[in-house]
Amino acid sequence: MSDSTLAVHSARPCRLAQKGRQTKAMVVDVALNLAAQVGLEGLSIGAVAELTRMSKSGVFAHFGSREELQISVVKEYHHRFEQEVFYPALKQPRGLPRLRAMFANWMKRAALRIDSDCIYISGATEFDDRLGPVHDALVESVGMWLAAVHRAIAQAKDEGHLRADADERQIAFEIHGLILALHYEARFLRLPGPIRRANAGFEAILARNAGARHVSLAALNRRHRVETQ
Amino acid sequence: MSDSTLAVHSARPCRLAQKGRQTKAMVVDVALNLAAQVGLEGLSIGAVAELTRMSKSGVFAHFGSREELQISVVKEYHHRFEQEVFYPALKQPRGLPRLRAMFANWMKRAALRIDSDCIYISGATEFDDRLGPVHDALVESVGMWLAAVHRAIAQAKDEGHLRADADERQIAFEIHGLILALHYEARFLRLPGPIRRANAGFEAILARNAGARHVSLAALNRRHRVETQ
Repeated sequence: MSDSTLAVHSARPCRLAQKGRQTKAMVVDVALNLAAQVGLEGLSIGAVAELTRMSKSGVFAHFGSREELQISVVKEYHHRFEQEVFYPALKQPRGLPRLRAMFANWMKRAALRIDSDCIYISGATEFDDRLGPVHDALVESVGMWLAAVHRAIAQAKDEGHLRADADERQIAFEIHGLILALHYEARFLRLPGPIRRANAGFEAILARNAGARHVSLAALNRRHRVETQ
Repeated sequence: MSDSTLAVHSARPCRLAQKGRQTKAMVVDVALNLAAQVGLEGLSIGAVAELTRMSKSGVFAHFGSREELQISVVKEYHHRFEQEVFYPALKQPRGLPRLRAMFANWMKRAALRIDSDCIYISGATEFDDRLGPVHDALVESVGMWLAAVHRAIAQAKDEGHLRADADERQIAFEIHGLILALHYEARFLRLPGPIRRANAGFEAILARNAGARHVSLAALNRRHRVETQ
């Protein structure tokens, strides 16, 4: 046996596994898009098989159950949410700049992607009465994001941008409410202006909880205009 | 023909019609409870027939389509929402007392009825992408309620409880956000304390928009304590 045959032999299972992962990722992608249209509860192995032109047993082999498929979709959504909302905001300085970036990215996710719904919002009403592993995966995933929001608020307190006695949980609750109202007005009622209202509400929350080193958005914009003149 | 026979003859179709209405009301009641568990989209003529022990064709005869059944459920929900949230608040004086009562009743509807979901919230995520008569019935129904909230805010401005230049739409947006966050934390995340947070957020919105005759909740409570001593 020559060296090259050996190399081919050992590479084959590796490539097969890689192909398996690619197929699974493709199926999850299709399932996520479907869930964003019809909800997580609208997902079925059959519908995903049809969309991917695979056999039902082929899809089943990758997940084992509809529930596992749903959980894989929640994990993939979590990954994309982090990529779009959380990580870009981390490039901003700690405190209000980062918190503002998180809110701006979150707004985009919740309201501007009119092609696909946010499963953290639609999933919450689907699964509030349906306890089980999918519910738990969703709660865990949303919980990780809200914990990141709490951290960003705590850092804004440390930086003196927000008052030292400001209540992280209260602020996060009110910010979350603005996102939910934005989603409701933009996607369901299709009213004009909800982004402006969400931004105004957000800045009012920051102003009410302002610390000694708080910088209002208006002041930031003035400073930016001076710097770029 | 005696007078009494005449009376019986003319009463029969009337009684039949009344029985028909009663049956229809009973079916709508069952359908509303079902929708509050599984969502409006989870409703089917078959499921309602099973729960009411009627034949499918019997249920069908009352509504003509699944869509008509869904619309009847939206109308019945609207009626109950008015009875529980809106009308009791009208007994309070115009201005902040009425607005506070509307918010308090709305909170109860959205968060405390843990046996059944609010279809104004669950329906919004179900129907944001599904245009048609059910979507329209929901949007109209929610729109009537939000218009009542706008009116109550405008009256609070007239009474001098809120600033004359306060923005009704902005205030209603923020209040709606608190209700949605309360619903999310209470029903889905099952966190402790969301009612307290929603109330604190609500009073902060009123304080930020306070007019010359604004009375804070703390002052109201102090006055109440003095009066009842």
